[in-house]
Amino acid sequence: MTEPLFTIPLWADLLGVGLGGIQGAMFASGFQGQRRLDLLGVAIIGIMIGMGGGLIRDILIGQPPATLQVNWYLLTATGAALLGMLLAGIFNRLNTVIVVLDAVVIGMFGAFGTSKAIAFGIPAVPAVFIGVCAAVGGGVLRDVLMGLPVSIMHVGSLYAVAAGAGCAFIVVANLFGMNIVLAAVIGIAVTAVIRVLAVLFDVSLPEQRRLYRRKVAAETGVITLPGR
Amino acid sequence: MTEPLFTIPLWADLLGVGLGGIQGAMFASGFQGQRRLDLLGVAIIGIMIGMGGGLIRDILIGQPPATLQVNWYLLTATGAALLGMLLAGIFNRLNTVIVVLDAVVIGMFGAFGTSKAIAFGIPAVPAVFIGVCAAVGGGVLRDVLMGLPVSIMHVGSLYAVAAGAGCAFIVVANLFGMNIVLAAVIGIAVTAVIRVLAVLFDVSLPEQRRLYRRKVAAETGVITLPGR
Amino acid sequence: MTEPLFTIPLWADLLGVGLGGIQGAMFASGFQGQRRLDLLGVAIIGIMIGMGGGLIRDILIGQPPATLQVNWYLLTATGAALLGMLLAGIFNRLNTVIVVLDAVVIGMFGAFGTSKAIAFGIPAVPAVFIGVCAAVGGGVLRDVLMGLPVSIMHVGSLYAVAAGAGCAFIVVANLFGMNIVLAAVIGIAVTAVIRVLAVLFDVSLPEQRRLYRRKVAAETGVITLPGR
Repeated sequence: MTEPLFTIPLWADLLGVGLGGIQGAMFASGFQGQRRLDLLGVAIIGIMIGMGGGLIRDILIGQPPATLQVNWYLLTATGAALLGMLLAGIFNRLNTVIVVLDAVVIGMFGAFGTSKAIAFGIPAVPAVFIGVCAAVGGGVLRDVLMGLPVSIMHVGSLYAVAAGAGCAFIVVANLFGMNIVLAAVIGIAVTAVIRVLAVLFDVSLPEQRRLYRRKVAAETGVITLPGR
Repeated sequence: MTEPLFTIPLWADLLGVGLGGIQGAMFASGFQGQRRLDLLGVAIIGIMIGMGGGLIRDILIGQPPATLQVNWYLLTATGAALLGMLLAGIFNRLNTVIVVLDAVVIGMFGAFGTSKAIAFGIPAVPAVFIGVCAAVGGGVLRDVLMGLPVSIMHVGSLYAVAAGAGCAFIVVANLFGMNIVLAAVIGIAVTAVIRVLAVLFDVSLPEQRRLYRRKVAAETGVITLPGR
Repeated sequence: MTEPLFTIPLWADLLGVGLGGIQGAMFASGFQGQRRLDLLGVAIIGIMIGMGGGLIRDILIGQPPATLQVNWYLLTATGAALLGMLLAGIFNRLNTVIVVLDAVVIGMFGAFGTSKAIAFGIPAVPAVFIGVCAAVGGGVLRDVLMGLPVSIMHVGSLYAVAAGAGCAFIVVANLFGMNIVLAAVIGIAVTAVIRVLAVLFDVSLPEQRRLYRRKVAAETGVITLPGR
């Protein structure tokens, strides 16, 4: 195990956790009717989205979870989830906010995952894999806990592709000697731009139509699970 | 990583695993009809409830799972699961036994989780979080493996709140210098009493009604998943 | 933590990962209609089946995941998944190929899991448990990600029993001083033969009928989840 060459600055990590927590809580609080979550359920989803990717990253790297070594992560994720619940009432129909927020969050989680993997001596291919897992892992945990179909499997290709592109950029740039912080910033931008463009220009695989159905369902409270 | 100041005595840990195994098997063997589990399925659920919380605890702390370092844990959990199946035939309608057993088990798992986290130098907030995950983690694994809605998300608030109260007590008492063993014993009592009182006085969030429906379903073999 | 006495040769490990990837992709590409997976989804399932058991094994042993320490595992699993998709078109109705492939794969994952656990000083009972988890873990991850009932719980007894027999043989043979490589080879054969014989002679527990229904469903694209 090599000494890490790079540590994610705490403020950047907490920013990712906070944005993830807001985004998770906005998603979770969109459920109405019989599937409505109580306060604690929304907070759990916020913590999952904010911290789940980092947990998976550290387990895959084989390190103790960084998010549990200081108090700030859980406080930030929980606070952000509460904020997300309040914002949900205001912003829930402003789909753009959710899409952009989500794109930046998966970019950050992917970049932090890949950078940390590189710092611990993980080779190129698994470093990209760990980044993608960190980016989409929180969403998988959310779907499993909420009993939803795991979106990455059926409708989420462009999620993983966007995250993979950003993480691959970081790995390649690092091989060519680019400063890792600069590479990480560009990698976040690559992921976020691909993701937002995909939504803007409606790059929808045939499967993608289901995502729309699911979003509508989340808003109306009638969940029609595909294929059931 | 600091040297642990406190080790959970093997007999106490095995007691928790055994009670969890009994409780899990009683739950699992309650399923009838098409969802009926075979002998191995009931044993797996018993192992999940008895050992799942401890596994999650150790992964979150970043330590090799203690329950896999000696033979006794798996032998105890499996033996307890077999016992739980026999007891299920006798006690399954004695709801009180299940409720009290369950309350003590989540208290023990929470207390062991928080104490071990403290011993490994985890700060206060994540120490409580790890305790709650240890307390409810086995149930989450059970629900995911059985394809049930994850109860902690929809109906289980008071579970997590009870576990959180006990774990928070241990952390605060430890900060004030109380002996950790004494703190753990009181913490177990806090969790168990809150949980039992919540059931006794029917402190049911609107969501809680579903728990009842699910329990009925488990007994009659007709599973009506909420919201489907 | 003792120094490992035995390392799984890379070629053998990659062979298991590759066969698992092929088998996972053949399973996944069998889904038609609304549940059809896109290219990336099939690749994810291939990676899960090829590498999931090894990941679970290393987490349970408390070691960094071996499959993420070199580039070859992910390249092999992804390549095998693509191959499996092509083969699926040809072989999908040749049920025998899938059954034998699957039997050998669970034998290999079980044997590698138990051998590695022994090498890291894990006692006999948890060493068998880790082997069984390594053998069936990929399938559990697959079912959870695809939103299928976890087959090991309802219909998969003979899976776990076959894996358990092979792993138990390795542990016992090791206690009697047999060379671990020889023990592992025999253990793989024990698991594979039990599994194939069980299918050949239709040793079906009452629950097993559902497995058939699920297979038909996977081929026809109409998934009738049991008990819903």
